[in-house]
Amino acid sequence: MWLQREIVLRPRPRGFHLVTREIVDALPELAELRVGLAHLFLRHTSASLALNENASPDVRADFETWFDRAVPEDAIYWTHRLEGDDDMPAHIKAALLGSSLSLPIGAGRLALGTWQGIYLCEHRDAGGPRSLLATLWGEPASQ
Amino acid sequence: MWLQREIVLRPRPRGFHLVTREIVDALPELAELRVGLAHLFLRHTSASLALNENASPDVRADFETWFDRAVPEDAIYWTHRLEGDDDMPAHIKAALLGSSLSLPIGAGRLALGTWQGIYLCEHRDAGGPRSLLATLWGEPASQ
Amino acid sequence: MWLQREIVLRPRPRGFHLVTREIVDALPELAELRVGLAHLFLRHTSASLALNENASPDVRADFETWFDRAVPEDAIYWTHRLEGDDDMPAHIKAALLGSSLSLPIGAGRLALGTWQGIYLCEHRDAGGPRSLLATLWGEPASQ
Repeated sequence: MWLQREIVLRPRPRGFHLVTREIVDALPELAELRVGLAHLFLRHTSASLALNENASPDVRADFETWFDRAVPEDAIYWTHRLEGDDDMPAHIKAALLGSSLSLPIGAGRLALGTWQGIYLCEHRDAGGPRSLLATLWGEPASQ
Repeated sequence: MWLQREIVLRPRPRGFHLVTREIVDALPELAELRVGLAHLFLRHTSASLALNENASPDVRADFETWFDRAVPEDAIYWTHRLEGDDDMPAHIKAALLGSSLSLPIGAGRLALGTWQGIYLCEHRDAGGPRSLLATLWGEPASQ
Repeated sequence: MWLQREIVLRPRPRGFHLVTREIVDALPELAELRVGLAHLFLRHTSASLALNENASPDVRADFETWFDRAVPEDAIYWTHRLEGDDDMPAHIKAALLGSSLSLPIGAGRLALGTWQGIYLCEHRDAGGPRSLLATLWGEPASQ
């Protein structure tokens, strides 16, 4: 069984956002798979996906703080400045975190750990809606 | 062919640990696949998986040194401090390295390069045992 | 349908190089898949693959600048120095960016976003040719 579907994530402010529920709700076919994989792919170069702590909002705030310090907007060495001060740092952050997640499916659901949630990492000040292409494949539960 | 199995990695001290042999030994079904993929997924948010140099222990020690400097425990900007000084840096390190690896299978084995080994990156001082969910799929050798 | 093929990328100087066209041209079988995945796997520990902005060469130059500052060659803390000053930083950079990409296939092509291109990230001064193992699987268009 194969399924491929675009999920459009609504615009969010710069920062790290928990989107697990939104993505799972858009993929009811997860329930049909006994075992399989879900591949989530962000079709952008200035936002990223990550898997991390799903409980405390202060964890997500600390992510933003650390990444802003590690990849500073006002560094004198950036040469690519055409698209705004937040653009080049956004590309670096997106590459560090990556634009996709491969998640195991077991018994009809994402087999995440208790504390794992899916983050949309929005690295632009006004990134707009983000297109996520989800691909699921695996062995149906009825086999 | 699909296989999904939990592998419990015994507790290890903070640092970067080579676990290739332990994982391969837990997946004898690798030998049955002519071509396929192995997905290794750590169900935690403060440890990670990476692929890197499998020979020199000093490479793994230098990994620990670099990551500890890049994500310092004593930074004044952390707000999430409830779970200990090593917790928030562990989350950042885990996101940078990622919680999963997708590895190609060819001719019944992981098709790694000569110098590539699987690292368990333990970012907590006392992370305890770590649950790794392995998923294999592919085309059996007998087809 | 499964396909696995080695693609040898010619030696490139240290830096970030756009290799989308080279990889797609080596995988004409992409056209046969209605939906699927492409897994690109670099069999090395001192080079990496990333997905990022495919238009401006200055973006790729800024990647090199940022990574060279984030993982400095002349740091006093490196203990693994046997293989040259560029070796240990190359291992760290490779782990940060990762040695593989999983890319969705839709309607016979890589379903990348408009601005996404595949980077070969060469972290050594003279890394030589790089071996990439490509694995494709999915549902043929003719089904």
